[in-house]
Amino acid sequence: MTKITGLTVHDVRFPTAAAGDGSDAINRGDYSATYVELHTAEGVTGTGLTFTNGRGNELTCAAVEALRHHVVGHDVDRLCTAEGARTLTADVQLRWLGPEKGVIHMAAGAVLNAVWDLRARVAGLPMWRLLSELPTAELVAAVDFRHITDALTPAEAAELLDRGLDGYEERRKGVEETGFPSYTTSVGWLGYPDEKVRALTRQAVKDGWTAVKMKVGGPIDDDVRRAGIIRAEIGPDALLMMDANQVWDVDEAIANMARLAAFEPHWIEEPTHADDVLGHARIQQSLGDRCRVATGEVAANKVIFKQLLQAGAIGVMQIDACRVSGVGEVLAELLMAAKFGVPVCPHAGGVGLCEYVQHLSFFDHLRLGSPLEGRMVEYVDHLHEHFTDPVTVVGGRYRLPERPGYSVELRPEAIATYSFPAGPAWRA
Amino acid sequence: MTKITGLTVHDVRFPTAAAGDGSDAINRGDYSATYVELHTAEGVTGTGLTFTNGRGNELTCAAVEALRHHVVGHDVDRLCTAEGARTLTADVQLRWLGPEKGVIHMAAGAVLNAVWDLRARVAGLPMWRLLSELPTAELVAAVDFRHITDALTPAEAAELLDRGLDGYEERRKGVEETGFPSYTTSVGWLGYPDEKVRALTRQAVKDGWTAVKMKVGGPIDDDVRRAGIIRAEIGPDALLMMDANQVWDVDEAIANMARLAAFEPHWIEEPTHADDVLGHARIQQSLGDRCRVATGEVAANKVIFKQLLQAGAIGVMQIDACRVSGVGEVLAELLMAAKFGVPVCPHAGGVGLCEYVQHLSFFDHLRLGSPLEGRMVEYVDHLHEHFTDPVTVVGGRYRLPERPGYSVELRPEAIATYSFPAGPAWRA
Repeated sequence: MTKITGLTVHDVRFPTAAAGDGSDAINRGDYSATYVELHTAEGVTGTGLTFTNGRGNELTCAAVEALRHHVVGHDVDRLCTAEGARTLTADVQLRWLGPEKGVIHMAAGAVLNAVWDLRARVAGLPMWRLLSELPTAELVAAVDFRHITDALTPAEAAELLDRGLDGYEERRKGVEETGFPSYTTSVGWLGYPDEKVRALTRQAVKDGWTAVKMKVGGPIDDDVRRAGIIRAEIGPDALLMMDANQVWDVDEAIANMARLAAFEPHWIEEPTHADDVLGHARIQQSLGDRCRVATGEVAANKVIFKQLLQAGAIGVMQIDACRVSGVGEVLAELLMAAKFGVPVCPHAGGVGLCEYVQHLSFFDHLRLGSPLEGRMVEYVDHLHEHFTDPVTVVGGRYRLPERPGYSVELRPEAIATYSFPAGPAWRA
Repeated sequence: MTKITGLTVHDVRFPTAAAGDGSDAINRGDYSATYVELHTAEGVTGTGLTFTNGRGNELTCAAVEALRHHVVGHDVDRLCTAEGARTLTADVQLRWLGPEKGVIHMAAGAVLNAVWDLRARVAGLPMWRLLSELPTAELVAAVDFRHITDALTPAEAAELLDRGLDGYEERRKGVEETGFPSYTTSVGWLGYPDEKVRALTRQAVKDGWTAVKMKVGGPIDDDVRRAGIIRAEIGPDALLMMDANQVWDVDEAIANMARLAAFEPHWIEEPTHADDVLGHARIQQSLGDRCRVATGEVAANKVIFKQLLQAGAIGVMQIDACRVSGVGEVLAELLMAAKFGVPVCPHAGGVGLCEYVQHLSFFDHLRLGSPLEGRMVEYVDHLHEHFTDPVTVVGGRYRLPERPGYSVELRPEAIATYSFPAGPAWRA
C-alpha cells in the first residue's frame, strides 16, 4: 500500500509555434505540458502529464487542482482499479464538464498516469513491463467496462490477456534485439516550404526511415505537389502516411482522397471531424482496400473508439496516452482493438508523447500478442532532450526503455526554464 | 456596429445538492452558472451563462478568460457570423482542448450567447423575435457548416428558412394566445422518497400538467415501482417521460426498457453514454414504435447531433442552449432536426436553462414552421426568482417573453449572494 501525500502541478510550455514545427491544417501551437507530480512519504515521486497546444494549458492545470482531493490521501493500488479511477471520471459534479471529454478528462489522464507511474516506480519496473507481467485479473480490474460491454466483456478481456501470455518471453527477446517499428512525422509539416520538405525527406531516408507521414489539408493542389515530392524521395516501397487533422468535410475528404490515392498512401489520418464515426465509416467505404482510415489522437474516450471499431470506420486505430483518462482507459482501447483485429499505431510527438506511447505499443505486442506487422509508433524529433529518460530510436525503431516508470519525467531545469509565465523562456 | 469594450465573468453557485433537487443516476450537483457580462461604450450589457453542476465551475470561468481576447475589442455583428464564432471555436491553440467539446466549448457558449443577447438588446427585441425575423441570409451566415455539409447544405438551410416565413404571423398570434407546450421534471428526482413523488405528481396534475418526467436508472425494481406510482396518478392519457441520465450500458438499456415499456413512456432519455450514436440507434431499433429515444443535453456539438439524425438513433432531439457554442450552433442543430423531421424538445432546468430555451423553441415553431404537436419545452420549478425576466408558465404552457434579450440576466443581489466562494451563501 502506497499512499499519495501531495500533488504539484506545473504549467510548462515550449515556444514552438514561431518555428512552424507542429503546424498542420488545424493546429499551430506552443507544445505544452500540464505536468503532475505525486508525492509519497517514502520519497518516491510519480509523474504524469497531458499535452496541450499552449493557450489554455492553465485550464488543464486548474482541472488537475479540481481533481486533487480524489488522489491526495488515497492509495495508489486502489486508484489503479476501475473503481478508483471512476472517482475522478464520474465525480457527480465534475462529470457534467465532460462527460469524459475535453479539459476535465485530459486532466484525469495526467493525474492517473502519474498514479500508474508511481506504481511502476515502486515496483522498480518500466511501465511496459509492469503492465505486460501483471496477472490477468489485475489488468481486467483496471478497465472500467461501463458503456463498452456491448463490444467487450470482462470475460473476453480476460481471455485475450490469458492467451497473450503464450510466447511472451520469445516476443520480449525479439523486441530487445530489434526494437519496435516506427515512422517519422518530422518531414512534412504544413508550415515548411517544399525545399525543406524535400531535404528533410532525403535525410530521413538516409537515417533509415522506411515510413514517413506528411500533413495534408492545405489547398489540394499543394497537397498533391508535396505528396509527389515525398513519394519521389522515399521511392515506391516505403510507406507514406497522410494526415488531414480534421480539416475536411466528409464529401470533401472523399473527393480529395480520390486524387491523393495516386501516391499510394498507407493511411489517411483524421480525414474529418474527430467525433464523426459515421463520416469516417463513409470515407473508409469509399477508399475500400486502397487506403486505411486512421484516427484517434483526439478521440475523447473509449466510447468513441468502440464505435469506430463497431462501424468498421477505421483500418488503423491511433491511441493517445493522455487524451483519455490514463492507463486504465488505454487498456480498454487496446483490448477492443485486439478483439476487432484492428492494428494500433499510437499518436506521438508533442511533449512526452513518444516517451509515453512506446510502453503501450510494447504491451500491445508483448502481452496481447499483436504482431509487429502493420504496427508503428509515431516518432517526432522534438523536445526529447528535456526528459530524464528520453526515447531511443535507432534506424527507425524504438528500443525497449529500461528505467522504472512511464518515462515522462522532465528534467528540473526544463521545468524551471519553460514554466509559464514566470520561466526565463517566457519572460523575454 | 457595436463594439465590445469589456468582459466580466462571475462564478455563481446555488447550494442545491443538499436538498436532493436535481439528483439523478449520474449527477448530484450545486446548480451553478459561469455568468458572463459583456460591456459596451453605449452602456448596454449583454449577458450569457453556461450551466455546471458546482465543482469545476471555476474551470468554465477560467475558459471564458482564455477566450476574452476574441471578443473584447471586437464587433457584435461580426461575432454573430460563423466566421466570427470560429475565432473562438477554432482557435489554433485552444481547439486542442476540445475539439468543440467540454469546458472550452461550454465557455464559448456562455460568451457567444452573451454576444447574441447584446445584439438583441441593441435591437430592442426578445431573442425569439430577433431570430425569427432575421433575413434568411443573415441566419445562414450565422451557421458554421463545416463538418455538417453531408447532412445540411447552406442552400438547404436557406430553403427551410424561406419556407418558414409562410404563416409566421398566424403562428405568432397562436402562441401569443395559447403559449408553448411544456412538461415538468419536478416530480420524480431519484433523491425523493415514494411519498414525495406521489404528492408532487398529484399536485402537478392539479396545476394543469399533462406531461411529466421521472428519473430512472436506480435499481430497476425501484424504477418500475415509481413508474407505477406516477402512471397511476397521471392516468392513461397524460405523457410520461423517463430519463436514465446515461447510467445504462446498451444491452442493459434494452433489457430495462423492455420492462418499463409497460408504463407506456413517451420517450426514454439518455438511455446510455451521450457519445454513443450507434448504441442509441440499437436501443431505438429495439423499441420500435413503442417508445422514442431522446438525447442531447450533453451532446458535445453539432457533429454528434448530425450523426444521431443520420443514424435514425433518436425520435426526439433535445438541444441545450449553452452546452454548445451558443446561438449559431443551436441554429445548425434546429435546422438539421427540421430537415430530418425529428421534433426538438429542449433540455431545461438547472440555472437559467428554461429562460434560454423557450426562445429557441419559439423560433423553431415560428420561423421553421415546426408544428406544436410532439414538441415540449422542459420545465423545472427551481431558481427562477433569481432572474430579472423569469419564464412565465401557465397551465403547463410557456408564454412568449416580451423583454429584449435572451432572458438570462441574474438579479445583482443573486450574483452577490451566491458568488463562489466569497458570497454570503457560501461563507456559512
